[in-house]
Parts: sequence; structure tokens; C-alpha cells
Amino acid sequence: MTVTSPKGFTASGVAAGIKTSGAKDVALVVNDGPQYTAAGVFTRNRVQAAPVVWSRQVLKEQTVRAVILNSGGANACTGPDGFADTHRTAEHVAEGLSIGAGHVAVCSTGLIGERLPLDALLSGVDKGMVERSVDGGADAAEAIMTTDSVPKTVEVSGDGYLIGGMGKGAGMLAPGLATMLCVFTTDAMLEPATADAALREACRLTFDRLDSDGAMSTNDTVLLLASGASGVIPGTEEFTRQLTAACSDIATKLLSDAEGATKEVAITVIGAASEDDAVEVGRSIARNNLVKCALFGEDPNWGRILAAVGTTAAAFEADRLDVAINDVWICRGGAAAADRSGVDLSGRDIAITVDLHAGGDTATIWTNDLSHAYVHENSAYSS
Amino acid sequence: MTVTSPKGFTASGVAAGIKTSGAKDVALVVNDGPQYTAAGVFTRNRVQAAPVVWSRQVLKEQTVRAVILNSGGANACTGPDGFADTHRTAEHVAEGLSIGAGHVAVCSTGLIGERLPLDALLSGVDKGMVERSVDGGADAAEAIMTTDSVPKTVEVSGDGYLIGGMGKGAGMLAPGLATMLCVFTTDAMLEPATADAALREACRLTFDRLDSDGAMSTNDTVLLLASGASGVIPGTEEFTRQLTAACSDIATKLLSDAEGATKEVAITVIGAASEDDAVEVGRSIARNNLVKCALFGEDPNWGRILAAVGTTAAAFEADRLDVAINDVWICRGGAAAADRSGVDLSGRDIAITVDLHAGGDTATIWTNDLSHAYVHENSAYSS
Repeated sequence: MTVTSPKGFTASGVAAGIKTSGAKDVALVVNDGPQYTAAGVFTRNRVQAAPVVWSRQVLKEQTVRAVILNSGGANACTGPDGFADTHRTAEHVAEGLSIGAGHVAVCSTGLIGERLPLDALLSGVDKGMVERSVDGGADAAEAIMTTDSVPKTVEVSGDGYLIGGMGKGAGMLAPGLATMLCVFTTDAMLEPATADAALREACRLTFDRLDSDGAMSTNDTVLLLASGASGVIPGTEEFTRQLTAACSDIATKLLSDAEGATKEVAITVIGAASEDDAVEVGRSIARNNLVKCALFGEDPNWGRILAAVGTTAAAFEADRLDVAINDVWICRGGAAAADRSGVDLSGRDIAITVDLHAGGDTATIWTNDLSHAYVHENSAYSS
Repeated sequence: MTVTSPKGFTASGVAAGIKTSGAKDVALVVNDGPQYTAAGVFTRNRVQAAPVVWSRQVLKEQTVRAVILNSGGANACTGPDGFADTHRTAEHVAEGLSIGAGHVAVCSTGLIGERLPLDALLSGVDKGMVERSVDGGADAAEAIMTTDSVPKTVEVSGDGYLIGGMGKGAGMLAPGLATMLCVFTTDAMLEPATADAALREACRLTFDRLDSDGAMSTNDTVLLLASGASGVIPGTEEFTRQLTAACSDIATKLLSDAEGATKEVAITVIGAASEDDAVEVGRSIARNNLVKCALFGEDPNWGRILAAVGTTAAAFEADRLDVAINDVWICRGGAAAADRSGVDLSGRDIAITVDLHAGGDTATIWTNDLSHAYVHENSAYSS
């Protein structure tokens, strides 16, 4: 279950020596056709890594023949030289496949601000080109890992076609996009407009609602490649639903593997005047360090949740707010209700529900707690 | 050097048994005139504690005869009963002083969502009424402490008049206002409009630019009481400058005492197209957990700083951004410059400078690092 599950794709993952550990660090995914339809969604951070600038340009033509990915370095904030490195990498892949470099997307992940070791990377491309196969998806998923503890892959079956995917990301999960590189493949036959609309909608409902630590990456990239090899043309709505399921699965795996987290928290806002209000309130709670510390401490501190709600511009009256933690309504009408000792926070999964009593819209934001291990992982090592 | 330094004020701080530790927990500050001019600035959180709702109303008349403050409970999210408690407290003070309850401001701090022990509080008022004196300022400053490690007071000399002040706050330091209760007194003769304008401007430049953990309190209150006892009428500009100095002093003390912090960080944004842009960029950096963890780890991770800048809407070009940490320009033109090994982060004070190269405006935001101790203090205890 990965990017090589659908027909029409080959992939590989190799160790090129970019990571000092000797682990796999270069992944190649090739669309062998007969179609090469593609769509991409990128970080909304205005400081963008060279591969994001490059790939955004490539995706304008909605045709991608191959994606080259590396871990061990983000190639972000590296100036014109860093962009030249990305360009050179794409050209090297293009030469190997006898295609145009303008059809090769590039993704990088790792430390910001340092140049990539280009010779190592290019030799990795050569090696990856030799090793690529219809069974190479698992190796590719492994090669894009950074602080991930496990590779993250998915497979979803549509009506006569498959969607496969791989993702990486464990820190910097963020608004706009969870931090990550993510490649989805499908053997469905897709119009470029369908691919684009489906990917945007799927990301909006999944990765965009994952907010582990509020920090937005310079490198986030989600790509969808369609080979058409199944010969099946799915309905737009049905395909969007399946792709959303695939994205949701990877998003859940990113959340589970977030750096140093001990809790996975679903914040559902109901009774909102609009979906935007629900998202704003959920995100405000998800980003509140005092709430996140309380969850780490297994303290059902609904006062901190209310204080977070109070910082938003959403429609609500403070004396009508209800809050449940793990289905115990410990706050009703903006004041204490059920006994907080009835809330069991010992498990890994926590559900917070906030009822704004202002309308009929709802949204769920996923986040993690703020733990000692989070501080340790993000202070002891550069990333 | 505290609220009783200026002429015309008496104060006290007593132990009323609200805090289980037996420490002082009720403070009283009385303006003995001849004038009773007052101004107040309150949290912008839309979930507001009962004492904030009450005191906001009191301040509309710009006359305050006394302030009653308690630690050991925030009286926030306590519904109509909580508001009745605040009202009753103000009435009790008013009876003791033979004044109207509408001229008594109330401040509370502590855990959200629990009712105050009213009997204990009212007996504390009685005790405070007996003990109040022109030397009582230090006791008052002690009585408002929560997780503060030291009482925080200030005295500033104007031309023929004094400004005194006390503040509390060590967690939840926030945008809008650092978390806190803060009372400033002066024996200057002030028009209500002057007092109001001076306090707003002073807060805007000090407490509003302190953003320790991005979490905005339900109880933040800053009050200014003027007795006129010096007989001196200061110029508006001069008084504003002195009051800003007093606020800045307390703000610095709050920053130094922030829960679990090991670093005090001044983020100065220069070359901004507007002061608002400079504040937005500074605040974005101050709130980025990855930046804050890096500072705790003494890692000059300018890439994370750039990523935080990139999430703002401020005017800048990514390839023109410069970043200095402790005066070493480790990023120029959006890419690596001076060797990061030249940055010494071993001290407690850290200065970050970001040049947006987009104009002539500047602002400084103060924050702390994100440490193991912050997580511990905010997860192990309810507050």
C-alpha cells in the first residue's frame, strides 16, 4: 500500500549519503503513463524553499513525469545557489528519463539554511534510477523520513482504480499544511481540472485542519500524479471522496507521530455561525500552549479552553459556551457544570467539543499536547 | 517604591485564607484624595472574568476611590453567582469606607472556573481595612502574587510628583496585555482624559508588546489612580513618558519572572513598512514554538525565524530578509551569512533583530523561551 500500488508507477528509495546516519535519503517516483496529469498544493509560507519555488512552476503545466525527493536538507533559505541546485537535480532526473526537466517536481526536507551536498544527491538520483521498480514504493516512503518514527503510506480502492500515497512529517505540523512532503498516485484517468479541484478539497478538509504546533513549514508539498493506467474515469465527487480518505489517513498518521506528543486531540466545534468560525475557534484552542500543557498533564482545564475561545472573532456569547472533554460536559453556559473529576484523560486520544450556540456549522481540528519530549526534540537538535 | 509611594494613598495586604498556603491573598489600595481620577485598561479576551466586567463599568465614570484585589481565584467563568460575589465584595469595601460601591474597582487572579470563598474574602476586606496605611504598599504587592517568585513594584519620579505601581503575573503573558493585575498610583493632578490617554499609550508600548506564551488572560487589568495630593499638574506628554517608564519597568519584571523561562528575548524588527508590520512580525516570531525551543536549546536557528516571518502579511521580500542574533548577522538576503558558531546564546538575555528592508518603522516584542520547566509548571498544576 503505497505510491506504487496503482498501475503505471515505479519508485525507489536509496541511501545517497546526505544523511550522516547512512539511512535512505533519496526517493524517486516516476509516472510511466499513459497519462501524466498532476496537481499540487504548497505551503502558504511566504518564505519558500527552492524546491517549492521550482515545483510550483512545474505544476502550472499540470503535467509531472517524475518526482525526486530528498531528506537530510530542506534547501530553504539558500539563495540563488540553492535554486540552481534544485534545477540541476531536476535536469539530472530528466536526462535519465529522457524527458524535459520542466516535468520533474522536486521536494526536499530537513534543516533550513544549508546547501545540499549536490554530488551526493545526483549520485543518489543515478542509483534511484537504476533501482526503481513497481515494488519500490516502500523504499521511497522510507527515504523521505526525517524525525518520523515510521514510514507513512496509504492505499484506497476506488471503483476500478487505486489511490496510493506516502507522506513524511512529524514536526512543524501546521496550519495551511501539516509539515510534510506527500505524494499521492492514482491509475485513474483524470482531467487536470478534476485532479486540481479534488486535491485542493481533500487538503482543505484534512492537512489544513491538522495543527500540531502552529508552526508553518517552508517546504510543505502535496502532489497528486495520475497515470490513467486503469483506463477508468471516476466521477469527480467520488474521486474527491476517495482522495480525501487517503489524505485523512496520512494526516492521522502524521498526528500520531508528531514529535514528542503523548496525546492526539480532536477539537470539534459545533453550533458555529459558519464553518470558518468553527475552524478559527478550533485552531485557537489547538495553538494555546496552556491548553496543550494541561492536556499533557491530564488536567481537564476547561477554563483555559474558554480563554482560548475568547481570543477569536467568532460569533458567540461567553455565557452560552458549553465545553465537553471526552464527552463529559464540564462547562455549560460559560460556567462549571459536570464534576471535572469525572473526566478520564489517561488515554492517548482526547476529544474536546465546544458548542458555540451560534448556528449550525461545525469543524474538527486535530492537534497534540505540549510535552517535555516536544521541548527536548525541538531544542536539543537543529531541524 | 510601590503604590503608597505617591501622596494620598493607603494600602494593605492580608492573609484571608483564600490561598490554602496561608500566604497573603487580599490587597486593598485606597485613594485618599483630594482627587479620585482613574483610568483602566482591560483584557481584550471576550471571555471576561466577573471582576473585569464590574471594574470596566466602574471605570466608565473615571472615578475610583478604592481597589480590592485577591489572589487564589480568578472568579472567571463563574456565571451570575460569580458576578454577585464581585458586587458583594465591592459593596463591602464601600461600606467600610462610607463611599459608593460604584467607585470600587475589583481585581481577581487565580484558577478559572471556581467560585471564590466569599466569607473568607469579606473577612479579608475587614482586616485590610483595619491594617491599611501609607506604608502598606509592599504588603499589597505581596498579596496579589500567584506563581510570581517575587513581588513586583516600581517608583518613578516626575517633576514634583511621583508614580508608584505594583503588578503580578508570571504566566499567560499575552498579547493585548501580559497577564496580570497592575495598579499604578500618582499624586499628580490629572484630568480624566489625560489619565486615560496616558495609560493607553503606556500600555500599548509596554504590556501590549510582551508576549511570553501567546495566551490571553480573562482577567488582565491595569489601573491608574491619581490623588492630586502633590498639587502638581504635569504636562500630558511628560506624564505619559513617566508612566510609560513605570509600565516598562513592571513589564520587564513580568518577563524576567515568566513561568519556567530561562531566556529573556527582545525581538526587534527594523526596516518595516509600518509599526503594525513590525509588531506583527515580532509577535509571529515570539509565538513560534520551534523558535522558542531553539532558544532554550541555545541554537541560533535563523531558519525557524525566517519561517515565522514568512507566515505574516507584512511587507517584505523573502530574498532581502536579514537576521541577527546577539548582533551577529547570520542571515543576509534570506540566506546564510556569518558563521552561526559565532553566536553566543549562553546568557539569559537574547537580542534578535530582523531587517525587513521595506521601510523605516520599527518595534520590539519581548518574549521568553519554551523550556521543560514551562511545560512542567503548566501541566503539573491547575491555574
